[in-house]
Amino acid sequence: MTTRMRSEIAEQPAALRATLDALLPRVEEIGRVAAPTRQLLFIARGTSDNAAVYGRYLVETHAGRLASLAAPSVATAYRRKLDLGGVLAVALSQSGRTEEIVETLVWAGECGAVTVAVTNGGPDSPLAQAADLVLCTEAGEELAVPATKTYTTALAALAVLAVGIGAEVNIDDLRRVPDAVEKLIDDPGDLDAVVEGLAGRQGVVVSGRGLVFSTALELALKLKEACYLHAMGLSYADLLHGPIAVVDRDTPAILLGAGGGPTLPGTIALAERVRGAGAEAYAVGGGQELAAATTAALNGPDLPEWVAPLGLIVPGQLLTEALARRLGIDPDTPRGLRKVTQTD
Amino acid sequence: MTTRMRSEIAEQPAALRATLDALLPRVEEIGRVAAPTRQLLFIARGTSDNAAVYGRYLVETHAGRLASLAAPSVATAYRRKLDLGGVLAVALSQSGRTEEIVETLVWAGECGAVTVAVTNGGPDSPLAQAADLVLCTEAGEELAVPATKTYTTALAALAVLAVGIGAEVNIDDLRRVPDAVEKLIDDPGDLDAVVEGLAGRQGVVVSGRGLVFSTALELALKLKEACYLHAMGLSYADLLHGPIAVVDRDTPAILLGAGGGPTLPGTIALAERVRGAGAEAYAVGGGQELAAATTAALNGPDLPEWVAPLGLIVPGQLLTEALARRLGIDPDTPRGLRKVTQTD
Repeated sequence: MTTRMRSEIAEQPAALRATLDALLPRVEEIGRVAAPTRQLLFIARGTSDNAAVYGRYLVETHAGRLASLAAPSVATAYRRKLDLGGVLAVALSQSGRTEEIVETLVWAGECGAVTVAVTNGGPDSPLAQAADLVLCTEAGEELAVPATKTYTTALAALAVLAVGIGAEVNIDDLRRVPDAVEKLIDDPGDLDAVVEGLAGRQGVVVSGRGLVFSTALELALKLKEACYLHAMGLSYADLLHGPIAVVDRDTPAILLGAGGGPTLPGTIALAERVRGAGAEAYAVGGGQELAAATTAALNGPDLPEWVAPLGLIVPGQLLTEALARRLGIDPDTPRGLRKVTQTD
Repeated sequence: MTTRMRSEIAEQPAALRATLDALLPRVEEIGRVAAPTRQLLFIARGTSDNAAVYGRYLVETHAGRLASLAAPSVATAYRRKLDLGGVLAVALSQSGRTEEIVETLVWAGECGAVTVAVTNGGPDSPLAQAADLVLCTEAGEELAVPATKTYTTALAALAVLAVGIGAEVNIDDLRRVPDAVEKLIDDPGDLDAVVEGLAGRQGVVVSGRGLVFSTALELALKLKEACYLHAMGLSYADLLHGPIAVVDRDTPAILLGAGGGPTLPGTIALAERVRGAGAEAYAVGGGQELAAATTAALNGPDLPEWVAPLGLIVPGQLLTEALARRLGIDPDTPRGLRKVTQTD
């Protein structure tokens, strides 16, 4: 049986092409709307929050603007106004219907921010209706509870947003993403070995640094929600400040890397440290060197670091789907979860 | 045998008194230094990062200023300059000697920020030397690897900082903290029941929202580093967006609450949902109502929400220390860790 999750993973190249076709022509419009602002504030939860972490690192490292993630409870529970003059507030919600996110974006506008919605819920969704600028992703309907194509298309929207506000990048890299994702779906690497390596475990540490930290958080979330693993997503540096103690013979680590970039050497050193502690280490991406330092490896995309997260999660999605089935879980409908999460 | 960690937990009332005595007279000076700034950026790792999360929520909810946490890799790995004009950059390091944090604070100054150091390493530490304003905590020497008194005194320094930049609070609440902590050390509640409840487990979810989210992160870190538990620290809302799936008969939840405040009702509802999923729920603080919704409860401090995190972690520290011993681990020297962590 093919799960919906597996089908939706396979739909990503087409979803990414459609999203980029829709949004790349809007780069100038984004620049105009963002012109009065100097910093970004992302508003999101769950998978969308992991997308926001990518947006945050991308905007800071490649567009040179301060960016951060909002604490929605300041708006929705404490109902406290902040001075958000000069802020571009970017809310992400796949459905466009999570009340907490809509309410926080409205609050941001009232606090003086210019507001942007990134959603797969269409221009009529409440989130889109609340925003000054709407960037709709073109993922089509997503039915499996674990988000896949709505996540990668949200990353694509954020990459276009970064270009719009002046990121110093080669836009052709972005156009190469759909093909790179297709290649990974065809050949994700040693999936069976990693599935078997995780099948008997209760916990796993998932780590990446800089731009790929977002992918570590997203893979950890996927493994929690669809495989019920105690998956702890941590940056390389935060892992060394304490949590490295949990890595042992029964608690392997999954380490993520782009094909290059300034954070890759530290990730390779971490793989060696994890194995020195008697634990298994699995690589996702990071090229030959990271693969060589680990027990088994999944392939990463052939893309430069700034767009690598759009592809790097894909072998992680395939791993999650295969591991869930291996554990007798239907990944399409994990326990305790619904497709649209309402939090207040 | 009394562990060093247990002794240092007991030293907190004195350490907090000394820190408040040293820093409260400096409220006006803080206000002067911060005057040209409009928002805050915290720079920290590990336990100090959890203190920064408290600072962030406190500053936003009670001083009405935007606050966020820096991504040190933007400075140290990507070496990217941002416009930090109007930013008060606050770096926290217990030792004052973590190179990554010192380097990031220097970077913040070069980017135009006014810089503050919060450290237990004294005015001659590299971090203090790099800052425009230095707030030294008076915790004395800390020898156990899991930070306790350097954490709570850092929270006290951040509370004073918030007062200095104009938080609308009653400063007498802060002066009551040492006594409230003393009371919790004398009577932490049903410690044995929670220790036994966690002793056979591999994983636990630790959750809190708003101001006490910082305490959830810190307790999760303590349980990871000293008890090797797969402890996942999550906000109430993030937990519902996916990770709630991991909560089951073998994976209990620890829920933290202040004695009041706008996030408490959601925490009580979460306890009921966790137990509905067949899992055990343990309370730390949150008053009678949260205790009644859980399997067993540790006491919280008799303090208003804005200073509750300074006391709320204390029963969690006692839990960590007792659970480590119960598991045959020496909490003073967990595997894989040193007192001063160097990351680049």
